[in-house]
Parts: sequence; C-alpha cells; structure tokens
Amino acid sequence: MTHTFINQIEPGKAIDDIYMAKEPILRSTSRGDLYIAMFLSDRTGQLNGRMWQATETIYKSLPNPGFVHVQGRSELYQNNLQIIINNISAIDASKVTIEDFLARTDKDTGQMFDDVKKIVGRIKNPQLKVLVEEFMADAELMEKFRNAPAAMKLHHDYLGGLLEHTLNMLQVAVAILPLYPQVQADLVLAGIFLHDIGKTEELSYDMAFSYTDSGQLIGHIAKSLVMINQKADALAARNTKIDKAVLDALGHIILSHHGQYEFGSPKLPATLEAFMVYYIDDLDAKISQVTSAINDEPSDSNWTAWKNALQTRLYRKRIE
Amino acid sequence: MTHTFINQIEPGKAIDDIYMAKEPILRSTSRGDLYIAMFLSDRTGQLNGRMWQATETIYKSLPNPGFVHVQGRSELYQNNLQIIINNISAIDASKVTIEDFLARTDKDTGQMFDDVKKIVGRIKNPQLKVLVEEFMADAELMEKFRNAPAAMKLHHDYLGGLLEHTLNMLQVAVAILPLYPQVQADLVLAGIFLHDIGKTEELSYDMAFSYTDSGQLIGHIAKSLVMINQKADALAARNTKIDKAVLDALGHIILSHHGQYEFGSPKLPATLEAFMVYYIDDLDAKISQVTSAINDEPSDSNWTAWKNALQTRLYRKRIE
Amino acid sequence: MTHTFINQIEPGKAIDDIYMAKEPILRSTSRGDLYIAMFLSDRTGQLNGRMWQATETIYKSLPNPGFVHVQGRSELYQNNLQIIINNISAIDASKVTIEDFLARTDKDTGQMFDDVKKIVGRIKNPQLKVLVEEFMADAELMEKFRNAPAAMKLHHDYLGGLLEHTLNMLQVAVAILPLYPQVQADLVLAGIFLHDIGKTEELSYDMAFSYTDSGQLIGHIAKSLVMINQKADALAARNTKIDKAVLDALGHIILSHHGQYEFGSPKLPATLEAFMVYYIDDLDAKISQVTSAINDEPSDSNWTAWKNALQTRLYRKRIE
Amino acid sequence: MTHTFINQIEPGKAIDDIYMAKEPILRSTSRGDLYIAMFLSDRTGQLNGRMWQATETIYKSLPNPGFVHVQGRSELYQNNLQIIINNISAIDASKVTIEDFLARTDKDTGQMFDDVKKIVGRIKNPQLKVLVEEFMADAELMEKFRNAPAAMKLHHDYLGGLLEHTLNMLQVAVAILPLYPQVQADLVLAGIFLHDIGKTEELSYDMAFSYTDSGQLIGHIAKSLVMINQKADALAARNTKIDKAVLDALGHIILSHHGQYEFGSPKLPATLEAFMVYYIDDLDAKISQVTSAINDEPSDSNWTAWKNALQTRLYRKRIE
Amino acid sequence: MTHTFINQIEPGKAIDDIYMAKEPILRSTSRGDLYIAMFLSDRTGQLNGRMWQATETIYKSLPNPGFVHVQGRSELYQNNLQIIINNISAIDASKVTIEDFLARTDKDTGQMFDDVKKIVGRIKNPQLKVLVEEFMADAELMEKFRNAPAAMKLHHDYLGGLLEHTLNMLQVAVAILPLYPQVQADLVLAGIFLHDIGKTEELSYDMAFSYTDSGQLIGHIAKSLVMINQKADALAARNTKIDKAVLDALGHIILSHHGQYEFGSPKLPATLEAFMVYYIDDLDAKISQVTSAINDEPSDSNWTAWKNALQTRLYRKRIE
Amino acid sequence: MTHTFINQIEPGKAIDDIYMAKEPILRSTSRGDLYIAMFLSDRTGQLNGRMWQATETIYKSLPNPGFVHVQGRSELYQNNLQIIINNISAIDASKVTIEDFLARTDKDTGQMFDDVKKIVGRIKNPQLKVLVEEFMADAELMEKFRNAPAAMKLHHDYLGGLLEHTLNMLQVAVAILPLYPQVQADLVLAGIFLHDIGKTEELSYDMAFSYTDSGQLIGHIAKSLVMINQKADALAARNTKIDKAVLDALGHIILSHHGQYEFGSPKLPATLEAFMVYYIDDLDAKISQVTSAINDEPSDSNWTAWKNALQTRLYRKRIE
Repeated sequence: MTHTFINQIEPGKAIDDIYMAKEPILRSTSRGDLYIAMFLSDRTGQLNGRMWQATETIYKSLPNPGFVHVQGRSELYQNNLQIIINNISAIDASKVTIEDFLARTDKDTGQMFDDVKKIVGRIKNPQLKVLVEEFMADAELMEKFRNAPAAMKLHHDYLGGLLEHTLNMLQVAVAILPLYPQVQADLVLAGIFLHDIGKTEELSYDMAFSYTDSGQLIGHIAKSLVMINQKADALAARNTKIDKAVLDALGHIILSHHGQYEFGSPKLPATLEAFMVYYIDDLDAKISQVTSAINDEPSDSNWTAWKNALQTRLYRKRIE
Repeated sequence: MTHTFINQIEPGKAIDDIYMAKEPILRSTSRGDLYIAMFLSDRTGQLNGRMWQATETIYKSLPNPGFVHVQGRSELYQNNLQIIINNISAIDASKVTIEDFLARTDKDTGQMFDDVKKIVGRIKNPQLKVLVEEFMADAELMEKFRNAPAAMKLHHDYLGGLLEHTLNMLQVAVAILPLYPQVQADLVLAGIFLHDIGKTEELSYDMAFSYTDSGQLIGHIAKSLVMINQKADALAARNTKIDKAVLDALGHIILSHHGQYEFGSPKLPATLEAFMVYYIDDLDAKISQVTSAINDEPSDSNWTAWKNALQTRLYRKRIE
Repeated sequence: MTHTFINQIEPGKAIDDIYMAKEPILRSTSRGDLYIAMFLSDRTGQLNGRMWQATETIYKSLPNPGFVHVQGRSELYQNNLQIIINNISAIDASKVTIEDFLARTDKDTGQMFDDVKKIVGRIKNPQLKVLVEEFMADAELMEKFRNAPAAMKLHHDYLGGLLEHTLNMLQVAVAILPLYPQVQADLVLAGIFLHDIGKTEELSYDMAFSYTDSGQLIGHIAKSLVMINQKADALAARNTKIDKAVLDALGHIILSHHGQYEFGSPKLPATLEAFMVYYIDDLDAKISQVTSAINDEPSDSNWTAWKNALQTRLYRKRIE
Repeated sequence: MTHTFINQIEPGKAIDDIYMAKEPILRSTSRGDLYIAMFLSDRTGQLNGRMWQATETIYKSLPNPGFVHVQGRSELYQNNLQIIINNISAIDASKVTIEDFLARTDKDTGQMFDDVKKIVGRIKNPQLKVLVEEFMADAELMEKFRNAPAAMKLHHDYLGGLLEHTLNMLQVAVAILPLYPQVQADLVLAGIFLHDIGKTEELSYDMAFSYTDSGQLIGHIAKSLVMINQKADALAARNTKIDKAVLDALGHIILSHHGQYEFGSPKLPATLEAFMVYYIDDLDAKISQVTSAINDEPSDSNWTAWKNALQTRLYRKRIE
Repeated sequence: MTHTFINQIEPGKAIDDIYMAKEPILRSTSRGDLYIAMFLSDRTGQLNGRMWQATETIYKSLPNPGFVHVQGRSELYQNNLQIIINNISAIDASKVTIEDFLARTDKDTGQMFDDVKKIVGRIKNPQLKVLVEEFMADAELMEKFRNAPAAMKLHHDYLGGLLEHTLNMLQVAVAILPLYPQVQADLVLAGIFLHDIGKTEELSYDMAFSYTDSGQLIGHIAKSLVMINQKADALAARNTKIDKAVLDALGHIILSHHGQYEFGSPKLPATLEAFMVYYIDDLDAKISQVTSAINDEPSDSNWTAWKNALQTRLYRKRIE
Repeated sequence: MTHTFINQIEPGKAIDDIYMAKEPILRSTSRGDLYIAMFLSDRTGQLNGRMWQATETIYKSLPNPGFVHVQGRSELYQNNLQIIINNISAIDASKVTIEDFLARTDKDTGQMFDDVKKIVGRIKNPQLKVLVEEFMADAELMEKFRNAPAAMKLHHDYLGGLLEHTLNMLQVAVAILPLYPQVQADLVLAGIFLHDIGKTEELSYDMAFSYTDSGQLIGHIAKSLVMINQKADALAARNTKIDKAVLDALGHIILSHHGQYEFGSPKLPATLEAFMVYYIDDLDAKISQVTSAINDEPSDSNWTAWKNALQTRLYRKRIE
C-alpha cells in the first residue's frame, strides 16, 4: 500500500491508510452521543480526525501517540480539511515505514558514515586515535549516531541529521586546517566527531522527535563529557590509559562548543581548537538553518517571515 | 621556631624564618652587580624581598613558588616595608607548618565531617544511600573533601572551607525541609553533599590556592557530574545498579545549582529539589561573603569599599 | 443553593446559579436580532455566555464586572461549552459567597495570624518592637493583611496568600537564624513582617485580583517604605521617636528585597539582614510557584509546559 | 589671609594656610622615628603631606577628615609635589571659607531660586499649588535645596548644582510645553521641582561631597517620594487634603524619572508627564556632563579620554 | 461615490465600493465548487471577503495587493462580519482616493514644509547652508520627504508623518537652543532636518506602508549617511567643497541618533550636538507614541493594554 | 646606523639612536633647575627619558609625537631602566626606517596582494566584477589597502594586517564554498574583499596606530558602505550602472559583518552570504587573536593572563 501523504490529501476522497494518532479525546455531542477527536499526522503535516458514533472501548484501544490504520474519508469543514473516521485500529510500529513519519536526510547514511570514518582515521595522536576507535567500536552507539537528528528544530532536524552535520563539519575542518597550522588538527577532528555525541541520548526519535527526560535534565553537552570519560575508564580497565591532559583538552572542546554561557556552555572556549570547533559548528548550523528557512518559506515574497532565533527576516532573492 | 607572620614584622628587625618565595628575578644594578628580587609571603600578607650580592647559582636554587628559609632584616624603603636577605635556601614542604601559609577554618574538621556523616546518614532512599556511602568509602577523596577550600576567593576561601560550607548547607536544609514537605528530602541532602565535590579536583591547595588546569578546562560543576557517574559505574560493576532516573535527578541538581547560565550552570533548575539546593547554596555563600567583607574592612567607616561581585558597598553599622 | 463550579458543568444541563459576568457586548445577528455576548466565570474557570432575544434594557442592567444570577442551559458549540441564558439579573456582592469566586488559602487565617504575632512578638529591640506593634494595632490594615493575596499570579495568588507567605518566611527565618548568629534577628523578623505590607494597597481583591491605580503607579515596594515612615511619624507625634538609623535599616530591607534592579528594587541588598530577607522571600516564592506549576499541570507528562518566568519546563516525576 | 589653592602651589615655597586633612597615619621610619602621612586638599586638588618628628599627641589631635592650619614648605619628591609640615593644628569649620573647599555654582543662587519660584508660581491646579507652596514654606529645606549639589560627580557636582539643574529643567519645560498641549503642564512643573528633592538628604556637603548613610540605604528617589507624602500628611493634618490620585501621579513621576530599572527607578514611565520629566532630566544632565568633560579635558587632543558612563570618548573640535 | 469605510460597515448591507484586496486564494468546497477567499481593507480596518462560484479566470485577474471594485453584501458569520462578493474587478491606483487607504497627517503639509524651510533657513554656517540647500533643491526628494511616514508603526505612522516629526523636532530645538549656548545650533538644525532623510527610501507607501528591500538590507540610518555624501560629491563636482570635518560631524549625528547600539546606531553620541538631536528625537517620538496609545485605547479603563515597546501599560486618567 | 631596539637596551650603555618621543613635559626640580621628562619608544617598547639641564628652547623644539635623535646613556633608576639624554633633536619622518617603529606583517605584501587579485579575479558576475575592478584600479586606495593594519589591537594589528586578514578570509572562503553550493560565491568573495575597506580611512598609521577623527565619528563599517556607493556613482557617471539590488546585497554584507548590534553592526545578517562572511571574519580574527595571546604571554605558565575581550584565560599547553 502506497502511503498518501497528509499534504497530498484532497477533499472528498476515501482514506485507507496508516497515520500517527496523537491526543485522542472522548467527547459527547450536545445530543449526548460520544465521539473521538484526535490529530492524524505523518512527516508532511497534521489534520484533525473525527470519529462519530465512537465507544469508550475504541477510545481506550488508541495509542497516544502511536500508529493507527484509518478508514474513512476527507472533507472540508469551515475551510479546513479533516478526516472523518469510520474504522480505526492500532498498528505496531514494526509494520510501518518509519520514513513516512519522520523526515530523513536525503543523503546516503552508509556513505556518510564511511566518510566520517575516513576523516577521523587520519588522526595520528595515539591517545585520541584509540579513544575515537573505542567509540567506533561501539556498534549500538554508532547505529544511533547514524540515525539521530542533530536537533529538534532549527537545523538538521531529521533522521541522519547528526551524522550529516558532523560530516559537514569534518569536511570544513579538513578544508581550512592547512590554513591554520598552529591549530592541533587531531584535537579538532576528534572534537568535532564527539562534540554532539550525547545527542544520541538527549533526543528520542522512534515515532517523533522529542527530548528524553535525561536529555532535558542533563543535556547533550554534559552527557557527551560523561561519555568520553566512560570510554576512557573502559580503556583504562583494559590498561590503555588516556592522559588526563588529553581527556581534558577534548572535554573542554565539548563543554565550550556553544560558545556562550546562555546557550548552555558551562565554559567559554579557551584553546585554539575549542574556538575552531565552535565556529565551524555555528557556521554549519546557521547556513543549514538559513537555507531551510529560505527554502521552506511558503509565500513568494522576497523575505521570509520573522525568524526569532536570528532576530531578523531573511532575504531570499538571488543576484546571480 | 615560632613563625613571625608577615603582618607582624616591624621595621629594623632581624629575620630568621620560613616564608613562601614567588617570582624571583635575577637583575643587575646600574653598577653591574647582580641582585635577586622576589616576593615573600605567608597567609597574612606579602612583602618585597631583595638579596644584594646574589649569584646565578643562588637564583637557580630558588623554587617558584616554594618555601625558603630566609635570614636577613626588615627595613622601610620609600615607606614600604621590605626584607633584605643575607642567606636564603629552599625548604621542603614537609618541614613546613602549612597552616602558616594557607588560611584554615577555625572549626574542627573532624567534628564537622562527623556532622556531615550524621546528616547524610538520614537518607533512606536505598539508591541515594548506597551512592552516598560509595563516596564516603573513598578515603582519599574524603581526605580532600575535608581539606579543600570552597572557593578561590569570595566565600569560605580557606582550608576546610568546602566542608564547612557543605555542613552549613546541610544544617539549613535540615532546619527548613520540615516546612516544605513536598520537597524530596533525600535528594536535597544527597545533592548538597555532592554539589561541589568536583572542587576537590578543581582547586589545588598545597602551597597556595589556585585552579588546576583540569579545573579551568572543565570546571567543578561538570567534574562533579562525571564523578557521580563514575561512582555509579563502579557500583554497577559490583551489581548495584543506580537507576538512570535517580542519577539524572541528582545530576540535574549539580548542573543547575549556580542558578543562572552566566554563572556556569548549563541547565536551569527544573525540580523543587534543584531550586532548594540553589537557594541554600547562594544564601550560605552570600552570608559568608558579606560577613567576611564587613569583618575585613580595614577602615572604620560605616561602609566597606565597593564590592564588585555584589555591585554595592556594604553597611557595617549595627542597630542592635 | 449549592454553587455548581464552572469546571463541573457538563453539556446539556439546566443552569440556575450565580456567576461573575465580564465584558458584556450587545450585538445584532445577520437577521437584525439583538443578542448579548459575555463571559461567565468563577474561581475555577470561565465560559462564553450568550443571551439571544436580548434588549438594550437588559444589556444596560448588567454590571462589568459583577455578579449575576443566570438561568439557562449549557451546550456544546463547535466543541466548546457555552451557556445559553434565558434570564439574567445583577446580584449584590453581599449576597455572594466570595470564596466561590476568589481562591482562598486552605489554611486557617486566624491561626496563621496568631502565629505571625507570636513570632514577631519575640522582637526585643525596643524601637522595632514599638513599630511592629503600631502596625499590629492598626485593625483595618491587619484585616487587609490577613486577606490580601501575595501576588496577582505566580505564587500565593489567593486570598490569605500574603499572610501565608509572610508566615512561611518567618518560620524559615526562625529555623535558620540560629545558624547565622552574626545576623541581627530582630531586623530580619521585622523586615519580613513588613516587606510586602504595601501589597494591601497595591492589589484589589473584592471581585477579582487586580492592581489598583496606585499600585501600578507607585508599587508595593515604595508604598511599604512610605507606610513605615508614616507609622514612625505617628509614633513621633506621640513622643515615641524611632531613630533614623533603625528606620533606614528597615527601609533598606524593604527596598532591596527583590534583589535586582530589573525586578523593581531601587537598591541592591547591602546588609546581612537585607540579603537574608531577599533569599528567604525568593526561596519561599519559588518553591510555592514550582509546586503550583507541578500540581496544576493538566497533562500527565513528566514535564509541565514551558514556564516563561523560570525559563524552563519543570520535571514532575518523583524518585522517592 | 588669602588662600593659596593646591593647584597654584609651586615647589620650594613656604606654606602657611588652611587645608582639609584626610586619612592621617602615624608611621615609624626605619630608624624608629615617628612621622605622620596625610592628604591635604582643597577644591582644586590634593597633595601628600608629611610631618617628620611627629608625636602621638599631634596625631591624635588631627581630624579625619577636617580642616587644619598648616605651616611648612612645598617640595618636589620623585617629581611629585608634597608638603613638609612643621606645625599643624585643627581648625573649626566655622573659621573657614567653605567655598575654598567645595566647588560652587558660578551663578547667583538667590536669583536662581527666585526664577524657580516664579516658574512654579504658574501652577494653577489647586492641589499641586498648595503642595508646592508647602515645600516652599519649609525654610530649612529650601536652604538645603539652594545649596545642595545635584550629584557626587558626572553633572552639576557643585554647591548650588541641584538648584541650577532644577531651574534649567524648568526653563526647558516652559519652552517646550506649548508644543505639546496634551501634556499636563502643572504636573510637569511640580514634578521637576520635586524630582530630586530627596538629594537634600542623600548627599552631605559640609566639608566634602559624600553620601549620607541614609542616602546610600534608601536613595534620593524613594526619599523624595516619602517627603511628598509627609508634606501631604502635614497638609491633611491642617485639613487640606491632597487627592490620592494627584499624589500618586506626582509620585509616579518621581519614581520613574531615571527611566530605567538599572538606574534605580522602581517604576518605568507610564504617563505623558513622566516621560517628559525623564527626557528633560536626562537631556540637561547629559549636556552638562558632556560640556564639563569637554571643558575639563587636560590634553589638547580633539578627543577627551574614554568616558565610561557614556561608553565613548567625546569629540571637542568645533566646526562653527 | 463616497467611500464607506470598513469600520462603518454594518451587517446585511449592500456593498458597491473600492477596497484594497490582499492574499486572494482559490479554494474548492467539499462539493468541489471553486471559491475565492481574500482580505478587503482600507485605512480603518480589514474584513474577510468570500466570492462563491468563482473561476480561475477571475482569480487570476486579481491584484495582490491592489485595489478592486467590489459589489456584494455584508453578513455576520460566526459573529464576524464578512463581505460576500458577487462581482469584483481590479481598479487602477490612479482612480483611487489614496487617503481612503493610507492614514495621513491632519496638518497642512505645505505649511509644515514652509515652516521647516524657514527654520533651516536660519543656518549661517556656509557649508551646512549650501548642503541643506542642495537637499531643498532636489524637488523629487522633497516631494517624498513631504509625504513619507516617519515609521511603520509606533509613532507618526501616517503620510506626512516624517515631515511633521521633523518640524516638531526643529521647533523643540529652536525653543531650547538658547538655553544651551555651548551647543552648535547650525549643526543641530541641519542634523535634525537630515536625520531621517533615508526613510524616503526605506519605506514604501504607495498602497500600504511597508519596508523596501533596500530599506531592510541597509536601513535609513546608513542610507541617510550615503545620501549626504552623495549630495556633497555632487556639490564638489560643481566646485563647492564641503569640508570632511563638517560632513563627518553631520554624519556622526545621523549615525548616532538612535542613541544605543541595539536600536541600530553603529556609533554612540560623542558630541554635544549628537546628544541633543538624540534626545529631541526620542522625546518627540515617545510623546507621539504615548499620546496615540492613550487616544487609541478601545477600552474605557484608566490603563491601556500592555505596550511591549515601553514595557508598561500607560495611565490615561488626567488630574487637571 | 643599526637601530638598537628598546627591548634590547641594557643598563649602563651609551645611546646614539633614533626613537619616537611622546608627551614631553618641562618641569623644575626642587632646586629650581629645569628638566624635560618624556617617553621614548619604538615598536618593541617604551622607556622614560630624562633630560637634565634643559631649556625652554629645547622643549619647544620637540615634536609630540615625533621622531628624535637621542644621545645619552641608559641607567637603572629604582629598578626601572631609563634614558638620560645629553642631546636631542627632532628628525624628519622621511629619514626614518618606519618598520623600526611600527610592526609589519612578516609576509610579502606584494605576493599577498597578487593572491587577493587572483582570487577576486574569479568573480564572474559582471556587475560585481566591474565594481571590484574599479576598486583595484584606484592605485592610491590599493596602496593604503596593502599597508593598513586590520585593527588597533586584538588581531592583525600591524602594517599589512588588513591585507593579510583579507587574504586569509578569501582563502577560507575558496576552501569551503564548494561545500555550500547554495551560497552565492561571487557575493561572498566581493564582500570579503571590501568588508573592511573603510579601515584605510578609519586608522592612521604614519608614526603610530591611531584612529582618525573621521574613523571615530563614522567608523569603518559605514565608511565602507559610502565607498562602494561612491565607486558605483563613478561607474554610473561612465555609463556602467550597478543594479541597486546588487549594491544593496553587497552593502548588507558590509553593514552586518560584525554580526551583533553591540559590535557596531547596524543590521544583523539576513542573507546566506552575510552569515558566511560574518563567520569567516570572526573565525580568522579570533584564531589570530588567540594565537598572538598565546605566543606573547610573557610567563611560562600553562595559562595566559585573563583576556577581557574573550572573558577567559587561554590554555597554552599542547598535547600533540
């Protein structure tokens, strides 16, 4: 069954498809009949769903949030499209093409991961090398690293976004490091590879993007620091000791890479390498964010809507 | 030999005592003779020292910083007291009464540590209990905990200051927790006990108070978080698992206890317990800081000098 | 007649009850018939009310805001509950159970006031003692003090909230003052008792909580200062002079108790006592605010909605 | 005896004159002889004074700060001028021409006060009129008003400065009020007259400009508010009641006239009149401050030194 | 045909009038019929318009935004007024009374411009004189100067507003310059005349007020600076050289007249004249803004709604 | 004559060399003899100079600042080196090796300029191409561009620094533009070439680095904008019109390249190209600044002194 995306549904059509259901409520009409209101969505958008002649049993069978098989039809109500549901049943996530529900990078994650591997493979400092390899050897973590989004919104907010953002940053670093020979290249490469590794635990992305409890309480910056210490402890237990000075130089890059206290960095950059990672991260994130905002602007105006995070509207017209 | 403190030295007296030497420089006079200039200090102050007729051999024998045995005399030079050195030799730290050089709490650290133990001994939550005990069982760390200062300056900036500040906070918590029964007492007590534990690694205090490299690169907040994770890993290796939810709730208190991003907290308080620890910490630190500023004011004015950290002068006159 | 609270009304029920009416408007339908739209509320919520077949006479008889006796029925309109009004008439406030309309502390205000009296009764400093007694002797003011809310929103925003908040603060002070013997206890107790006394004039709370004109133009901080000066003038007229130094020390606590300029304090804390009152006030207010936010969260998520005043969401899950 | 001003003293001259002494210290030389170091000043500057062969009796006879009759001579010491004192004795302030020690406006304070009287005499609103007259009738307060400086530094920092600044503001108001007929002129004039009246109590200026304890604890803004309330109470006691609305509108102008929280205003301007007084105050203060900075610049550069309060250097070159 | 203003339309009336149409969309009903939704507006407000039984040809004939002749009727839909359109056709802007669509000053722009001319005619400095005359001689620019609004919103946001604001400022300057003889009057007058001249290019105001692309990319401050340099270049090409010092002093006033970096001034005021222009600009803008907010408040409360730009509500009650 | 640099002078040596003299003052000793005090400097440092037995004629012959030929000797005075001057005479700047007095890039400016030319030679957009060529053809301006420093302090603060910084930025852009194909490369290259072009007028650097009057009043950002408009006007006068859209897109990059209002940008970045130039500028400036701070640190500590502009100390120890 080919999925009909939310943003492709036209009024007056029969619906027989899988969508994600959220926030179902059981209500009664003024005549006392029960009905269920809910949201139905996929990665292209969200509509209201209404099931008239509902029962409490049906209501209790619904996941929140979760996937459902819906049969019914689309209609316009007060100029808004909605879905009138005749039958609804919960569907296991394993039966679902997850890409229909969560945006995914349009690049090849296998290829990107190989590229990351190749670039960090250049690291010669023996301690950084062994530490990076310890992360690479953690198959479960690397699986998450290949799939995690880089953020909830703003930039690279799709499956594989963390990998794509990390690779972009590594490529920028490789391009400019020769221009700044005083900067310790291995530290920069290891720092970029691991700077957001805690996002694998900060964000959950099985059905929708959201923060984990742990992500909100601790945050990916502090988590990344804990993770490199745990990997170093594991190496030490196998008699491969990472010097405290190396671990702290790397940890400092991670802690300071947001560049400012109010963006959650408990330390400001204090080494050449920390400054370089901070700027490369901010450059790649902002270029991605501005590109998306310009591409996603629904109007045909020369300017996007006001972007609060950037404190400006963005100009879309090209001169070239 | 009783130590004559720097602030007790009068002009024109013979000197035969141990002081800390800092920043020695070998210079030549306009006639070409070599001499050494340096600072001599103990915990009560610092003076200039001058050794005329010096040699490069003597200069090279001097620690920087480090303890020296000085023979010579005090004199007034342009209305400033200085020490003219006849003989000088390096002295091993083991031969020195460290309390002459570093300020120390005037309370009994053994007694204070017992009090801390007693209060955290009230913790009933089994996981917090076992985690706190794991810290208590780390004799080397507890030795540091008993001796560390709470800060470089501003508040409790003396040996034993961390212990004194932690005990004060625990006592305040014990006094007010009954007034706020909705606050989880065990979390507050464990959070206070461990909130600054990373200061044992952030500060060095063998000859003078200073930040360690690691302290400046990582900071005590992130260090404390890493330490509780490492203790939990150690417990897990012995089959005592601390739930992630417990560890994160405790970690959140630690990360947020400075209350504001610009004071180095990467997370703002988001639980009742985090708010309580933040306020108790700030209250105890500020009362200590204001008390010291009022007591240490050298003038007999009703007001202290301007205190930049508080953005005000402080009023010293009492009405009672 | 038992009051049916707004949050208890179900669709399709007959209504014969008293509510507060606000912002009535007389409108005409597309057919030219007049109707009145208004809000109907009590302390649990607010609904739209509609009276079809209305007249200008009825419209002019309605208070704004004010209590009304409403007869009609509830119905769902576009999934929102509203009240269709058949008869409506203004009702005098004296006939109304005010507690149905304004939230009130669930503690005993008589008991709380006695507790406050007992604690400030410990003040020994003769001048502070006489000044506090002068306030206690002002029966009209004390009546307002017992009933005023502590704030419009955020914390202790209910009748008796000012008293409850003041008592909590006094109890915290009594618990921790023994730990800080250098702090002048009488000043702290008098400062807490009077720190928000101007709120009795800043807020009006006869039918709903709102700021008075005077409250908005002058604010409770400056008003509290004027009030202690006026009481001191009254005492002076009866030959009991309060020293300027005592009055200024107390006034300084009042002026600085918000702790920061941007929260309306024209002076920053500059005495031990001012710091202590500021921290106790902030602690009690924030614990109350966080507790309410956690308890009032309508969803069953582990996290509340974003709280702008705290710049975070709040975590509700307990570990104990 | 004509006073020789500090900035007119040349090296190698005999001194027999009155200066203000500050911070005397009794010290001993390296030979054990006692001497006294102190500062000697008048309104043009300050020099070091040294009295060799001093005694503790002389030391104890010195005021701090206070006027002294000094006999001795001037000399250059390490290229700095200092005064070597042979005889010194305390002098009563009544024997001193205070203008030699405190800067004073070069305008006629009698004339300026008459001009203020004339302008506020235009106020027609009966309540503001009677309130302003109540202040005018307080001879002791008006005496202080004529003599107080407007500030410790920055602008109008000389005797009579408060009067001069107030008159300037009134004249600006009289000039522009006709252009803004919607602004209530009487409120603006009364607001200007009284906006800084609390400075008569905030600053002391008998021997030098300094803040009083009360000035630092309470500040002139809150003091001014208390003063208008006390005058209104005094009028009420004589059966002339000022409406609360009038008093609050005037009080609001006073509280908000610094325009921003961080400059000590607990309320932001919320009426046309408050905005007008704020802008006229800031304009007159800044023009005075910039004029002084430009005139007082000691170098002949086109630019003054960096002015921290203005966050810029100032350009002095004229084009006209 | 007299225009019926949007805010005068009642339900159930026939409509045959010109309005501005914006954002038309072609939609289909649930039955598959096409209809067009759009906004219809004039300077008094905006309504929804609906044309049922529409065609794609009609839709494509509609301007966006642009003037249209509308025939139909008004009706209430869910208590909101809307216009049901039977016929609609685009209308050329030349056939329209533009004042019906854009607010205009109620003062005489010819008279105001003469007044501006008269005041700047007083400038005696030969270089400023010739520069101002060069602007006055640019008929096309002066035509824009007479018609431009002073801002998109907040103050003088209507046709002729720039002229009215500039004239007000010149009149304030003429009134107060005699009180500050140290301020170079010619620079102030020329600075005021030209401070916002770039707004003629920053704002477009043919059918509605909006920013031009150039206005958003460059801003009126930098544009004004470029314009005075271009006029000086034009004069230089005709052998009338303006000294760099004069041009820079004038340019500095323009660049710094917002007074703070965060309001878009790349330089802070550093001359007496720059301070004066900044204060006069801010005073006139704020008085205008507060006056409008007070006059436009729809409720009869003593207070306006919260004004975010001023961070307060405004008090409207007069005491006189 | 080889120049002996200030930082190479040892005590007790004969001096016969050229230095820059600053701030000479004529003073008299306590015995009434005249002498001259001044500063003598070159690019390596500054010393006090003293000429005893001076005359007013000599004093008046001295430039301030300016070059002088000095004969005398060095001596230690109170442990500070100073120069005792026997003969002194002003020297014309043309006789001086300016590189002895102003730091200069150690790279080849001819080569660097060729590299810049080559990179901007890649620009294909015809309008940007012609505009860049117009600047390249201005030989006088390009001469300044090759020699100007990039800043007074902090980064690239030496002759040729502007060129070096501009070239670095162009090289970074060339390296990373292929990674961001959506960014208009020609605009970025032209924007980098011209972003600081106004610094040729903002800074003067004939004898020492300082701001010009014009630089302080207007600033290099606004100056750069005026310059591109003037070049476009010149082209237009020769019938080569640059579209307003192109000029504004380029002007926007210039105005916004400091990225934040408080750093003097009157506009925030609003195009992809503006963001890219801002990040490349900040990255190159900060890497240069941190590198200098680390290299110039005089102590052998792992940490530099506190750097206020970066709000941290910098860590110098390498791990590689």
